This record gives sequence, structure tokens and C-alpha cells, in this order.
Amino acid sequence: MDYSRFFSDDVPSFMRSPVREIFRKVDLSAIFSFAGGYPSAETFPLDGMGALAEAVVRKYGAKSMQYGATQGVPELRELIARRNGVSIENVQITTSSQQGIDVCTRILANPGDVVEVTAPTYLGALQSFRAYRAEAVTEEGLAGRKPKFFYVIPDFGNPSGETMTLEERKDLVERARREDFLIVEDSPYRELRYEGEDVPTIYSLAPERTLHLGSFSKVFAPGFRLGWILGPQELLEQIYICKQALDLCPPVFDQYMAAEFLGSGELDRNLLKTRELYRGRRDIMLGLLEKYMPEGVTWTHPEGGLFLFVTLPEGVDTVKMYDTALSEGVAYVAGSFFFADGSHCNTMRLNFSYIDMDRMEPGVKLLSDVIRRSL
Amino acid sequence: MDYSRFFSDDVPSFMRSPVREIFRKVDLSAIFSFAGGYPSAETFPLDGMGALAEAVVRKYGAKSMQYGATQGVPELRELIARRNGVSIENVQITTSSQQGIDVCTRILANPGDVVEVTAPTYLGALQSFRAYRAEAVTEEGLAGRKPKFFYVIPDFGNPSGETMTLEERKDLVERARREDFLIVEDSPYRELRYEGEDVPTIYSLAPERTLHLGSFSKVFAPGFRLGWILGPQELLEQIYICKQALDLCPPVFDQYMAAEFLGSGELDRNLLKTRELYRGRRDIMLGLLEKYMPEGVTWTHPEGGLFLFVTLPEGVDTVKMYDTALSEGVAYVAGSFFFADGSHCNTMRLNFSYIDMDRMEPGVKLLSDVIRRSL
Repeated sequence: MDYSRFFSDDVPSFMRSPVREIFRKVDLSAIFSFAGGYPSAETFPLDGMGALAEAVVRKYGAKSMQYGATQGVPELRELIARRNGVSIENVQITTSSQQGIDVCTRILANPGDVVEVTAPTYLGALQSFRAYRAEAVTEEGLAGRKPKFFYVIPDFGNPSGETMTLEERKDLVERARREDFLIVEDSPYRELRYEGEDVPTIYSLAPERTLHLGSFSKVFAPGFRLGWILGPQELLEQIYICKQALDLCPPVFDQYMAAEFLGSGELDRNLLKTRELYRGRRDIMLGLLEKYMPEGVTWTHPEGGLFLFVTLPEGVDTVKMYDTALSEGVAYVAGSFFFADGSHCNTMRLNFSYIDMDRMEPGVKLLSDVIRRSL
Repeated sequence: MDYSRFFSDDVPSFMRSPVREIFRKVDLSAIFSFAGGYPSAETFPLDGMGALAEAVVRKYGAKSMQYGATQGVPELRELIARRNGVSIENVQITTSSQQGIDVCTRILANPGDVVEVTAPTYLGALQSFRAYRAEAVTEEGLAGRKPKFFYVIPDFGNPSGETMTLEERKDLVERARREDFLIVEDSPYRELRYEGEDVPTIYSLAPERTLHLGSFSKVFAPGFRLGWILGPQELLEQIYICKQALDLCPPVFDQYMAAEFLGSGELDRNLLKTRELYRGRRDIMLGLLEKYMPEGVTWTHPEGGLFLFVTLPEGVDTVKMYDTALSEGVAYVAGSFFFADGSHCNTMRLNFSYIDMDRMEPGVKLLSDVIRRSL
């Protein structure tokens, strides 16, 4: 039976995530994987999960398993509010920060509307924008049109690994105020800084026109689908009403697990270890690229986060090279997927958080060989 | 700052859930509440949660805390497939069955499309349809238009408590095939039958044009936001792509908790006790209504589920009566919220699963008094 006659007009714009498609088909544990944005399993508090669940039940009882408020449980909202120096009314818990992107797009973008993005930008955000038939373009692509909002990961961007300076943030805010658009600041990696100083969030510079997205995925575990949105109450109110119809409320037991993990100080203790681990991996990664990559290949030097972005000589097509790489046993994500216009075919995103330490050298060596042969 | 200039065209159609608004403002534990569709806390396996979390970590290790497949983790999909006698390819796990309704609407309905519903029907579904600017109408309201799909809770409907006969299901399927529309069969209560025989699901009668929604909320706990969709692979494929952009994947730790609870047989043992408990409450409720309700008030006799639906004499407006009831200390949900056209102002939904056994009699007595005074 052909179902196409039933589909909504949004469906032809749905875009598969090439990253998720890789995971659908390939057993990553069998290859050297620099694809994906997975945290290291070493950062998961596995041994403490039973005790954490028991503490939640002891402390919160039946309400930990019941339906909860659409905004999120007050205990977790309060903890996040305090951590970010905002009021609880400015905190909406989301069922993952991907949902945060989705719901912001839902309340703001009509088909044909323009969303301004950086080049490159996060693939999952491009998926959300396209699924609502909004057009994602860079500043150059605006051609005089006003964006509804600007989407950006200012700290250790996915995929670039780069961080916006304070000047750049101030310029963006000034432009947003002058041209009257909103800013969606996606900030899942902000707490994973390995060197340098924190730069103020865009939200702190323009709280009246910024929706700031946070996530537990990189500081606790992505298996709990939990994020949050900080923003003006008037915007959060529409997100709240929308979210009622999306999933009624965020996962309640997960929220109390996160509240317990955060409130007890475990999260911050774990974060110290996580930063150490990832700083080490980043440094090894940078050293290995220096050691093995052929001449003409360059890469970013991230101060934090999970990724670095590699540029190969012009003419190399990393999408075409991908099957070869995979058959040789090494995976990356082609960089062109992160460009709204599909350009920059000679780039790739490498993740350094997931792969085991002792597999980094053979992995980078293998990848360098594949690249060298393609030159 | 006025944000209305930024909002998408969907936003004015967003509809607040009157039920969720009640919970936002009122401490339900302080009143006699027949509102909401909450399961009884007595059915939650609270004492076993620590051990369950430990079993999950022991059995599944780090993958229980990592990102997972967008379709859901294979172990849970397999268990649900077996329980429902379908293939794993016909199972998509959802982050709540509310998300199931949302995503089905998303892939099927354009603004202005018609979704056929029963009268009354589930409020959360009306919210989803309206949020996509689809028009929810009953058969009488079709006026010659073809629905994109028919949405129905055939077993112990919310709010009616009523169950479709096999003949009615066959007629619906025949009509769907003749007139060429799909069916979304929402089935969160099916396993909560207290008398009578199971009626075959609509999905079993028309697997080629039905999306069947299931939920863990009433057989495990709603604090884990987990449901599933059974349906044709071609439809699930679009839901899968859409869900990537919605939240990447359902909560992974929750899925393994549910898989462990289901796979170990605990779910079925717990379900036996849950049915006993709710059967008792339903019987008490029916007896109390008989004992206290004024003449001219009628109600449904549900064979299962969580609700019964009360009809008062013409002229009584249960929306207007609500503030009085609440100030007296008793809550219900006005029935007109469950009608796409807002009619049937003289009806109300009563939930009998949540309120403690010893609070049922004073609650029904109080409600009966409020009703009597409004006649």
C-alpha cells in the first residue's frame, strides 16, 4: 500500500540524520569511531545508579513515578535556576535539548521563514528547521530577508569546536536588537571547558531576546533525555502550552534522578573528572593529527566540548570517501552535512570523547592513511 | 516586550489543557480529586526501584545511559513485539503515547485537514490536532469532507469509559477502507479490563491502515514517559525520521527499566494487583453514585480503564459549577472539554483510580451535594 497520499506537507522536508543512519547500520564498537557525539561511558556514574534510584524513591516517594508538571518538577527547576542565576519562572525542563530546538522552532517558524545559522552548524538543528519547512541560511544567504531567529552554539560549537568571543557575542546581540530577531543559544557543552576563561552567555547579554538551551546529556548521561530552556516568561509560556500536547511532561523519574545527582554535588564532582578525561583525549587527538595527517590538512583547536573540525585540501570529497573509510574500519561525519547549503565537501567532524584512549592512535593513523590515498 | 510578532501561525491555535491547568493551580492532595487520569500510587513498584536500576546496570552496562536508537532499544521493541504478536519492524517506541498522538498528527495532518473523532474524545488528542491547525470533527460534522484519519480510544475510552463492540470496530474498518482514511487507535487502558471479554484491536482487523498507540503509563508508571506505536513499516519510517528531530531517541535508561520490569514478569504480576485494585474502586464508585447522586443524573458503566462519564440534567453547566465544586473541596473535569465542538455542558468526567479508597465516599457525597444545589 502506498501511503504517500496521506502524508502532511512537512513530510517531504524531513531529513534523515546521516549520523543516526550510520548508527543504524554499523556496530560502532567494531570500528574506530570518531563519528557521533557520544560522551565516554567512563563518565557515567554506573556504580551509583542503584543507590541513586533508591535515594530518589526515599526522598520523593510516589511522586517520582507519577505524572508531573509540564514545566518540569519544581525541585529540578529550582536547582537549574540557582546554577544559572535566574528565577524558576525562567526555567522550562525539556525532554532532551533536541526537543528544546524542536519546540523553539515550532513556536517561532512558519514554512518559508528564515532561520539564520552559522556555517557550519549542528545537524540536528538543521533537521528541525527543515522539518518545519523553515529555511536555514547563513548571513550571506539572507539576501535582505530578516531571520526569525539566529541559532548558534557559541561555546565549543558542534561541529566546529570553536567558541565565539565576547566581542562577537556583543555584535550579534546588537544586530539582533537593531534588526529585531531572537537568538536561540544552544549550549550543551558549556561546562566542558579544558582551557581558557568562560565567556558570558548570549542569554546573559540579552535575556529579553534569547532562548538558552541546556542539556544533561554531557554532564550526567544522554540516556536520560533531559534538557532545559532559559528564557523570557512570555516565550516559555507558549513553549509550556505547546509541550502539553507534545508529551505532557518531561520524564519525571529521570528529573528526580538528575535533581539528586545535581543537588548532592555528585554532578560537579563527576564533571571535574569528565573535564580531566576529555582534556587528555583532546590533547592526544591534537598530537596524533599533528603526527599523522598529510600536509595540507588543517583542524580547529577546541578549548572544550567534544569535537574538532578538519579541513582537507580542495577537491577531496569526504562523503564519497566515507565508504572507503568505513570499509577500512574508521568512521567520521562528513562536514558538508553541517552546512545549510551542503557545501564544504572537503571537511569532516571528528569526535574525541567517545573512542577509548588506546584506540585513538591506530584510529587516527588509519584515517590519515585513507585521507592520504584520496589526495 | 511583546513577542507576538515572532510567533508562528500555529501558536494562536495552541490550547491549554484545562486538566493540566487545574494541576498547576491546585494542590490535589488537599481536596477530593476525581479530576486527572492519574494511576494510583499503590500500583507503583516503589520498593523495587533501586533493585531494578541495579539490575539494568548489571545487565546492560553503559549502553543503558548512552544515546540509543531512534526506534527505541531493540530489547524493549522485541518484548513489545512479542506481547502484541507483531514483528519488531512494526514497533516504534515513543517518549509517551502523547508523543505518539503528536507525531502521528505531524506526519499526517496539514492545517485545515479534517481528523474525525468520537464525541466525547481525549482532550490531549484535541490539543495535538488543534496545535497543527487540523479540524477535529465527529462524523456528523464531516459535511461530505474526507477525514485524513479517525482517532479513537476503543477500549474504556477517555473520558467515556465505554468500549467499542466488535461490530462497531468492523464497521469502522470497512468505512476506512471504503472511504480511504487511516485509523489512529489509542489504547492506553486496554490491559485494565475488570469484567467481560477482550475485543480484538482495530489494528488486528486492519493492520494496513491502523497506527496503534500503547503506553506504559497505566501498567508501569507515568513518571517514565514511554509508549509505543504499532503500525505499517512505511508509516513508522516517516515517524522514525520525524522523531530524530523531535528528541533523537526515547529515554534509554527508562526503556531498559521497562524492559526489565516487563521481561522479568513483574509487570504482569503487578497488573494482576492493579486490576484488582481498580475493579474494587470502580465498584465502590458505581455504588456511591447510585447512593448519593440526585435523580436525573446518569453515568456510564465502564468494563475497565480509569474513568466514568456523568450526564446531569439539561441546563446544568459543569464549567460554571467547577469553581463552586473546587471551593467546596472536590474536583472533576467538565465534560465539554472532551467534545470537539465544546458542547455537552451538562457532563463531567470522573476518575476512580487515583483517589484513596477511604476518600471516595466523602468525595462523591460532596460532589452530589454540589450538583444537587445546582439543579
